[in-house]
Amino acid sequence: MQNKPVLVVGSIALDDVRTPFGERKNSLGGSAFYFALAAAHFTDVALVAVAGRDYPASARQLLRTRGVNIDGLETADGKTFRWGGHYHQDINERDTLYTELNVFADFRPRIPADYCQIPYLFLGNIQPALQLDILSQMNHPKFVTLDTMELWIKSTVKDLRRVISKTDLLLINDSELRLITGEYNLRKGLKRVHQMGPQYVIIKQGEHGAYLSSRKSLFYAPAYPVEQPTDPTGAGDSFAGGLLGYLAANDTRSFRNLKKALLYGSIMGSFLVEHFSADGLLHLTKRQIDDRYRYLRKLVSL
Amino acid sequence: MQNKPVLVVGSIALDDVRTPFGERKNSLGGSAFYFALAAAHFTDVALVAVAGRDYPASARQLLRTRGVNIDGLETADGKTFRWGGHYHQDINERDTLYTELNVFADFRPRIPADYCQIPYLFLGNIQPALQLDILSQMNHPKFVTLDTMELWIKSTVKDLRRVISKTDLLLINDSELRLITGEYNLRKGLKRVHQMGPQYVIIKQGEHGAYLSSRKSLFYAPAYPVEQPTDPTGAGDSFAGGLLGYLAANDTRSFRNLKKALLYGSIMGSFLVEHFSADGLLHLTKRQIDDRYRYLRKLVSL
Repeated sequence: MQNKPVLVVGSIALDDVRTPFGERKNSLGGSAFYFALAAAHFTDVALVAVAGRDYPASARQLLRTRGVNIDGLETADGKTFRWGGHYHQDINERDTLYTELNVFADFRPRIPADYCQIPYLFLGNIQPALQLDILSQMNHPKFVTLDTMELWIKSTVKDLRRVISKTDLLLINDSELRLITGEYNLRKGLKRVHQMGPQYVIIKQGEHGAYLSSRKSLFYAPAYPVEQPTDPTGAGDSFAGGLLGYLAANDTRSFRNLKKALLYGSIMGSFLVEHFSADGLLHLTKRQIDDRYRYLRKLVSL
Repeated sequence: MQNKPVLVVGSIALDDVRTPFGERKNSLGGSAFYFALAAAHFTDVALVAVAGRDYPASARQLLRTRGVNIDGLETADGKTFRWGGHYHQDINERDTLYTELNVFADFRPRIPADYCQIPYLFLGNIQPALQLDILSQMNHPKFVTLDTMELWIKSTVKDLRRVISKTDLLLINDSELRLITGEYNLRKGLKRVHQMGPQYVIIKQGEHGAYLSSRKSLFYAPAYPVEQPTDPTGAGDSFAGGLLGYLAANDTRSFRNLKKALLYGSIMGSFLVEHFSADGLLHLTKRQIDDRYRYLRKLVSL
């Protein structure tokens, strides 16, 4: 086993989250935060992001004690990025109450020199122009995974297409696939996305599961059926963290291993949603992770 | 292999269907029609339903040539049940343009004497009071499968609960599970449905796939990813037909075989949606069915 590190560039946030099961103010969040804590269960993680002066020292300490290298976590004058949201009884639906970009508005990621060689890179959901800038700073990463969102598909599709063309693995959901390709059909949409560059595409379907697609093959893994989802914020980033963490830990990018990695991603997402913030990832043992891996295999076994 | 017959009681309809891929007037439809044509690929099928004087002789002939026993297809004075619908670009969404019950309004199913011993029974989606009446006419069926809909959960829940208590396998979707149990969570909802009687519950999730639940185990099968869904009308009934057809053909009700049956159900649904009416089920070979079975197994294989 060749343990390689993984680099994440994304957001650090303080969230106000309300769900049918409670609420939390100043909840530690952000794509880079969730990704890092999930991936750190598998391998070394380096993080590039920006926080404000109000970002708690305890949060930095938490990341450090989990083995996350936060030399790339810049502190800028001003307040940390903030998001407020309210989840419905149907936990798949939510209203955004507010978004305050704060220091994130002027974020220009600078990749520390000793990060530029890291082979596994996760481009969290930020402006495509910044994602391109990050790629230009990296020294030929082996495997680039990209997350994005509707906003960028609608507002900066040209930049986004340039990032996608340099991406090895694209993570999107059904509606993003439709927006990017204009195709309502999964298989037709996948063909078109592969033509844009990525060797691999994952279609995330939330509580249903996820497809992994290569130009030749398709794989599907159901999601772990969580008994009490409490706070879904960060599920997609934890999914990406488990997935990339597994790939980097095993230094592999084969379709066969991507299938396994997808299961680990799904599992990290399932633990994440059971508690507020990233609490569900903190007291997690390898055994608990492996138990859910076996559960997911059994779930589809004849 | 113990080939047993299956009995379906449900609707016979003439539909006007419009989808983004075309339209068809007087499309042969109805739950009993779709179910019978799917199940007939596996075993003998007997059908109880009502049609009007306008129901074409060619449709009866079609059913007969497929080996469906239509001695229980009553002809009543008046017009056949009619439904008109319009599917959206997102084929999972549809508007009902009209529903004309016609002869279906006074339907009182009479089970022919030689049908009463049939061990596998499918209660298509009709009023729960009629479903209870059918059960009272049957001579201890081995395996009762029930389909229902939101309307009955909302309007006649007391009758519906009585049918459910006599059901071996209940087929519902996510929102019906919520309505019946008041639970938004899949696993909690399943526990409550099992308490109402059924040994097995299948949660249909359309293009995503379906869960099969027993009191002890859970199984998930993704749907076959169809390249060009043309007309989804009847997908759920074709699913039930493939599933019950397989069980009856093998005279089995074990969880292990229900898993396989679920795959066959999913496959018959996938062929159905590729064409208007039940055209997708008519020129289908065992080999084509088996190919999709292998595809579905490979789709979840590591």
